Amino acid sequence: MKPYIEWSKEELEAELARLRKEFKAFQNKALSLNMARGKPSVEQLNLSMGMMDVLSSADDLTCEDGADCRNYGILDGIAEAKDLLAAMMEVPAENIIIYGNSSLNIMYDTISRSMTHGVMGSTPWCKLDKVKFLCPVPGYDRHFAITEHFGIEMINVPMTETGPDMDMVEKLVSEDDSIKGIWCVPKYSNPQGYSYSAETVRRFARLNPKASDFRIYWDNAYCVHHLYDDHQDYLIEILTECRRAGNPDMVYKFSSTSKISFPGSGIAALAASSNNLDEIRRQMTIQTIGHDKVNQLRHVRFFKNFEGIRRHMRLHADILRPKFEAVDEILTRELGGLGIGEWTKPCGGYFISFDSMDGCAKAIVRECKKLGVVMTSAGATFPYGIDPRDRNIRIAPSYPCLEDLISATQLFALCVKGVSIKKILGMELTPHS
Amino acid sequence: MKPYIEWSKEELEAELARLRKEFKAFQNKALSLNMARGKPSVEQLNLSMGMMDVLSSADDLTCEDGADCRNYGILDGIAEAKDLLAAMMEVPAENIIIYGNSSLNIMYDTISRSMTHGVMGSTPWCKLDKVKFLCPVPGYDRHFAITEHFGIEMINVPMTETGPDMDMVEKLVSEDDSIKGIWCVPKYSNPQGYSYSAETVRRFARLNPKASDFRIYWDNAYCVHHLYDDHQDYLIEILTECRRAGNPDMVYKFSSTSKISFPGSGIAALAASSNNLDEIRRQMTIQTIGHDKVNQLRHVRFFKNFEGIRRHMRLHADILRPKFEAVDEILTRELGGLGIGEWTKPCGGYFISFDSMDGCAKAIVRECKKLGVVMTSAGATFPYGIDPRDRNIRIAPSYPCLEDLISATQLFALCVKGVSIKKILGMELTPHS
Repeated sequence: MKPYIEWSKEELEAELARLRKEFKAFQNKALSLNMARGKPSVEQLNLSMGMMDVLSSADDLTCEDGADCRNYGILDGIAEAKDLLAAMMEVPAENIIIYGNSSLNIMYDTISRSMTHGVMGSTPWCKLDKVKFLCPVPGYDRHFAITEHFGIEMINVPMTETGPDMDMVEKLVSEDDSIKGIWCVPKYSNPQGYSYSAETVRRFARLNPKASDFRIYWDNAYCVHHLYDDHQDYLIEILTECRRAGNPDMVYKFSSTSKISFPGSGIAALAASSNNLDEIRRQMTIQTIGHDKVNQLRHVRFFKNFEGIRRHMRLHADILRPKFEAVDEILTRELGGLGIGEWTKPCGGYFISFDSMDGCAKAIVRECKKLGVVMTSAGATFPYGIDPRDRNIRIAPSYPCLEDLISATQLFALCVKGVSIKKILGMELTPHS
Repeated sequence: MKPYIEWSKEELEAELARLRKEFKAFQNKALSLNMARGKPSVEQLNLSMGMMDVLSSADDLTCEDGADCRNYGILDGIAEAKDLLAAMMEVPAENIIIYGNSSLNIMYDTISRSMTHGVMGSTPWCKLDKVKFLCPVPGYDRHFAITEHFGIEMINVPMTETGPDMDMVEKLVSEDDSIKGIWCVPKYSNPQGYSYSAETVRRFARLNPKASDFRIYWDNAYCVHHLYDDHQDYLIEILTECRRAGNPDMVYKFSSTSKISFPGSGIAALAASSNNLDEIRRQMTIQTIGHDKVNQLRHVRFFKNFEGIRRHMRLHADILRPKFEAVDEILTRELGGLGIGEWTKPCGGYFISFDSMDGCAKAIVRECKKLGVVMTSAGATFPYGIDPRDRNIRIAPSYPCLEDLISATQLFALCVKGVSIKKILGMELTPHS
């Protein structure tokens, strides 16, 4: 197939007419699918049902240190939950705090605390004229929503297959002391599924920020979320690298079991240096009587150890892999060679990132929605919802069943083709077109 | 028994010598008891064990609206959990948001949000020179810790048997627009066990605060925590009263199941006007993907409805009542008529408030600790930990078994007597005495 751009006007118009018939067929199907978020499927949720009755006698509810996990006490997590998540997060158990059900909430609280109380003695950010964050793009919309909520100015940094543009990151943080952080999803990134190279991680650890309260917000959400047993990304451990580089306090690392056990009913954790954790514990003492220890113990009893988590993740992979492969197959078949889109082929995580021709993403998502498939909003992967080239679309293959996913991806490809032809022909792409 | 103050020096010295022998006996017992916090006993925790396996099939995990509560979605609580807690909190279900495991965390977040974002459009408090809170005293140390953490100036307001001194509250809030809130535990107050009278609640609802972002922080922690079936305190419902008074937005009401199901693994809720909740939901959307819905459903399936909660609370009362009565009996027997202490006799809640002679509380708590009984720190019931008269001590009878509680209370009474005699005799009460 030769690229659309080389087709004659007549060829493109004929193709568009043909596509319109396919659209009609989809209209008749009356699809109603939501692919907006990285939600696990019901089949995946069922994998963790054994967790629901793993604690049923009072004896089961005693922690290894003898504490009754049903009562008050233990602010920062029970020891066995720390051990479990420390192994998963590749840090010593003393460098971890176990929180509630959401790592997003930890990140929000971390920014909120920095606004009102500063970071390890720094001026509270709310007292500063300007606070900025670096945002590798495309990235995770909920990260950007937090910084926007607190009035923090966001600066786009382009992502590459090996991580953010580190020349730019190094230059900016060393020159501007109003830059207080950078959002990172370092492994199977959201939305591309890229993993930071060893060199990128080492350059992160060796940053020389002008602001002493600069922190790397390392959201390792997909640390064990591989699709293939024999083809996995590896990530250098950032806390260790920061310590080796003489910057032990420069990173907060976040993770959770949201896409391991149950989204919204998992356990989340923060890993950081002792200096950081000491400060955070002082604030936690004021904020809470501690998080849900029963749920922490429930996870420990169910997974037993890190090997249990890895085994469990292979079962998730068996469900997810065919879905990722189906999307790639359909896009390759439908769009290959047409020069109207590129997409990533991750070996883990929850998303595929699709780049259309410039100026087409919003129109494509709009067309899909008209025909019953809701995608993540175009622009959502950029700060303020503004994709300067209007080309990035996040595909979330996890939730629909395989059959629905195939229909949705076929429809998506069709919309990409239709919108691209209109773009090339100079036709209107507005909502009223 | 005549008051110590009327005893001769010789009589007091002889009494002190006798008490020293009793002290010795306690030293030999080598007690090690912690009565510092309002922790339920193991016996109480066992009442909720049925909750642990009440959800065990995937069908059990479907909400009444068809949502799978194991997955993402539903920001502000599942409908059936709203119904359950709305009944308990005496508000319509649409005026409630269900949170995570801790109402303290809701209060913290509420203050934190007001600091960074203001209240319904007001100037963020962090931009103001001065923010003040009214604190009925004695009160709950964790409330005071939150306001202190955010640099909010706290003003003591004396408590009475019918609630805070409302003349003072009315005057202060109407004159000073830097006063942004008041901490209230309106039913079975912490530490006295007092409940606000209907008149007090009505005067609260009719406050005319100078600050438009003034809110009443109504921590109804002990709403169903009665000790007696036939002798219960009743509290006028504050949201309704505020609405009737034309002040619908003036109150945040907090509650949780911490001392109903499991402390730290219960569910917490906020009730407020739609205007308030709309603002809070906008912030929650940024902060979290939602709280633990599985645990919400677990509570609903276990308690079924509000009648189930009430039935369950009678079982708690059967365990707690003898403990409260034992403390009162011992204090009456040991201290009655001596004029060296007064204590409350609540019919609900978790605490008994004890007032010693002025200047004795710290010494009494210190003496108890020496002999193996840890009480709540003297001063803890006041902002900044400063009890101006050094007389208030919070007694928490719930956690120890009855036998231990009896020993601990006997020891406490002994310490009260010893310290009071020393005080009357003008002897040194410093830590080195």
